[in-house]
Amino acid sequence: MGKGSIFIVSGPSGVGKGTVVKKAIERCDNVFLSVSCTTRAPREGEIDGVQYYFISKEEFEGRIKNNYFIEYERYVDNYYGTPALPVLKAIEEGKNVILEIEVGGARQAKKRYEDAVLVFVAPPSNEELKRRLLKRDEGNEVALAAVDKRIERAKEEYNFIEGYDYIIINDDVDLCTDRLLSIIKAENLRVRSNKKLIEKLHEL
Amino acid sequence: MGKGSIFIVSGPSGVGKGTVVKKAIERCDNVFLSVSCTTRAPREGEIDGVQYYFISKEEFEGRIKNNYFIEYERYVDNYYGTPALPVLKAIEEGKNVILEIEVGGARQAKKRYEDAVLVFVAPPSNEELKRRLLKRDEGNEVALAAVDKRIERAKEEYNFIEGYDYIIINDDVDLCTDRLLSIIKAENLRVRSNKKLIEKLHEL
Repeated sequence: MGKGSIFIVSGPSGVGKGTVVKKAIERCDNVFLSVSCTTRAPREGEIDGVQYYFISKEEFEGRIKNNYFIEYERYVDNYYGTPALPVLKAIEEGKNVILEIEVGGARQAKKRYEDAVLVFVAPPSNEELKRRLLKRDEGNEVALAAVDKRIERAKEEYNFIEGYDYIIINDDVDLCTDRLLSIIKAENLRVRSNKKLIEKLHEL
Repeated sequence: MGKGSIFIVSGPSGVGKGTVVKKAIERCDNVFLSVSCTTRAPREGEIDGVQYYFISKEEFEGRIKNNYFIEYERYVDNYYGTPALPVLKAIEEGKNVILEIEVGGARQAKKRYEDAVLVFVAPPSNEELKRRLLKRDEGNEVALAAVDKRIERAKEEYNFIEGYDYIIINDDVDLCTDRLLSIIKAENLRVRSNKKLIEKLHEL
């Protein structure tokens, strides 16, 4: 068993990356999702330690100072961040950890952990992305304006793709999950993830 | 359809890399084996253009001067080399080309084509490699001396592993083929192999 890897999955809102990540975790027993910390209030049904670790703003800012996070971002009035320790412990144990984070956070994480693998989930076309966003917001009064805003945001996100290692198209959830799992499998076969095995060969 | 990649597969004699490559090609319709040129005489049953392109020493040396080869090596009195043009043409067409070459040639090829993906096929253990070599040479008088020589050669080859991208263990032919195919699939999802697709996204 070699070392696992950190996989950072990003992509525009509405592309379906959450579903793909969920399916990948279901299908592969050494792939886990990192649980982030946030200062926003839990929504109905959300459990501390499952969707997020819910902590106070003071606590969060203290942790920023202590380098507790692989990456963190502030949206409006709330912080969101990925704790480093559980992720690093898991990859040493041969597990793979998926971080679902925004393009800005992905860049931060890659700077700190250059072996982190960056995967961008893209829609088959921009028309299809728009269609999915509209469908998701059906019946919502603010739908159209919100969709336009998300499409604008998608455009900005595409400018980060060149900094990613892989791009996977979500034309079909199962095919897209296959792609993500192939990437995870291949990365686990990297020479740098198999140092112990190579040491054993040298003992000839 | 993105660009294909060059996959250089190496590994010690007896590890079974030929069988793994053959199975990978059978199982995947956009994976091809590059046909090398050689100056050695064809053996019984070998067909020009299938196992090798058989050319004269003068012809080979002329082609070296013209940068015809991705890599070439001289063993004893014969040259062996990988023609560049058909390989580059195939990868532009989205095909993946496997080159089964020695560690020295692999290093040459990687210098010239830095996007070439280097895969080292390793035995599950050195004892197993010895067992496979002995089995293959059963009934052969020079078997033991030849096996020892190959094991010595394997030791030297292991020193090159750190220059490879991936290491796959051939404990089981089908599992090892799965590993090679995952690597090929993942490499085809690289951002650098999907420039046209990314251009299309930018057209939003």
